[in-house]
Amino acid sequence: MKKAVVLLSGGLDSATCLGIAKSQGFEIYAISFDYKQRHSVEVDFAEKVANDMGVKEHRVITIDLAAFGGSSLTVKEMEVPKDHVGTEGIPNTYVPARNTIFLSYALAWADVLEAQDIFIGVTAVDYSGYPDCRADYVAAYETMANLATKMGREGKNITIHAPLQYLSKAEIIKTGVKLDVPYELTHSCYDPSSEGLSCGSCDSCIYRHTGFVEAGIEDPTRYANEPHRPLN
Amino acid sequence: MKKAVVLLSGGLDSATCLGIAKSQGFEIYAISFDYKQRHSVEVDFAEKVANDMGVKEHRVITIDLAAFGGSSLTVKEMEVPKDHVGTEGIPNTYVPARNTIFLSYALAWADVLEAQDIFIGVTAVDYSGYPDCRADYVAAYETMANLATKMGREGKNITIHAPLQYLSKAEIIKTGVKLDVPYELTHSCYDPSSEGLSCGSCDSCIYRHTGFVEAGIEDPTRYANEPHRPLN
Repeated sequence: MKKAVVLLSGGLDSATCLGIAKSQGFEIYAISFDYKQRHSVEVDFAEKVANDMGVKEHRVITIDLAAFGGSSLTVKEMEVPKDHVGTEGIPNTYVPARNTIFLSYALAWADVLEAQDIFIGVTAVDYSGYPDCRADYVAAYETMANLATKMGREGKNITIHAPLQYLSKAEIIKTGVKLDVPYELTHSCYDPSSEGLSCGSCDSCIYRHTGFVEAGIEDPTRYANEPHRPLN
Repeated sequence: MKKAVVLLSGGLDSATCLGIAKSQGFEIYAISFDYKQRHSVEVDFAEKVANDMGVKEHRVITIDLAAFGGSSLTVKEMEVPKDHVGTEGIPNTYVPARNTIFLSYALAWADVLEAQDIFIGVTAVDYSGYPDCRADYVAAYETMANLATKMGREGKNITIHAPLQYLSKAEIIKTGVKLDVPYELTHSCYDPSSEGLSCGSCDSCIYRHTGFVEAGIEDPTRYANEPHRPLN
């Protein structure tokens, strides 16, 4: 079986991405990050997803991105935007170089495993504001990765797969449901309550809830409050 | 003053790289990594170099690359090659994706600082076996970095500087001496004694000692044993 390293946040997108990688016949090595994010509860969800979906191995890497700050996801004093989805510029939930750091750890593991395939659940449709979710970024990362590594130098080409790149949230959910992705074990909220309930009003909750409504599938999320009405 | 983030290992090359960045008028933000390397003593040297050379800020990031293994620098049971310098293939001292991980942390910090310049002391002349020390790798990283970040997206171009790229060790040392780089505060050995003395016979010691001999400058290194004769 060919091995793949899959970035698994505990959210809806990366769980679907894992389902897609599995459906393509890969043996899954999942990697998650406790990076001092506000919603570090997502890592517990990642463990549940990894167990449920039968990965070969799941690693949780503890790193400190709060040390650099610059994001409402890592700086307590910054506020996570609520009740509207910004359509211009880069939202303050952007974590500087986060996907680049995550992919680089995945790359290190892949180089040791000789896994030529890395999966990341970025999607440019919903989160067009994040620079490190776009197709040109992923392509440039892949080029760099092949020059950076033992595998690449030995002619074992590395592919960075971003199978959700052009899917809407509703399309992602419909895909995942067909693949038996356990969405009830996933978590999207940036700003959960101390009990781990989703706020229902941050960008991530709004996109998630809208996705379920548009897909015509019941949203299994436990919200602290009535979730924001779906976007139209 | 323009800001630059400089990767500082505690070794001879990165200290020289810092000297070059300073000489170009940058305000220096130095970043070092305790990655569970065999020679983690180098981090203490990095602190001394950073203090001596008057950086604006020095961060030491603790990460665990031993968790992935795959290198004699992080796996105790693997032996660091001694008494010869391999000229073919990738030496076992290669740490998978290490420079990519280091640069990615530097990139995160740079994106927060709005520092458009990152310096890395890679050199392709001595260490031609490491894939992530080559000019094509550095160029590909720069392209990726500009697509990955807020700065890049806002048109503030990021440059990855590798000013030692084509210099021999002797040329690096001659350059550093002119810039008052405190080589007596640097450490190169991959396999130091428990007292922190250099072994004198690993690749890194051999290149270092050869460099001083070829430059006609006294080697200030404290070796546990007579260092390996210089390469010709």
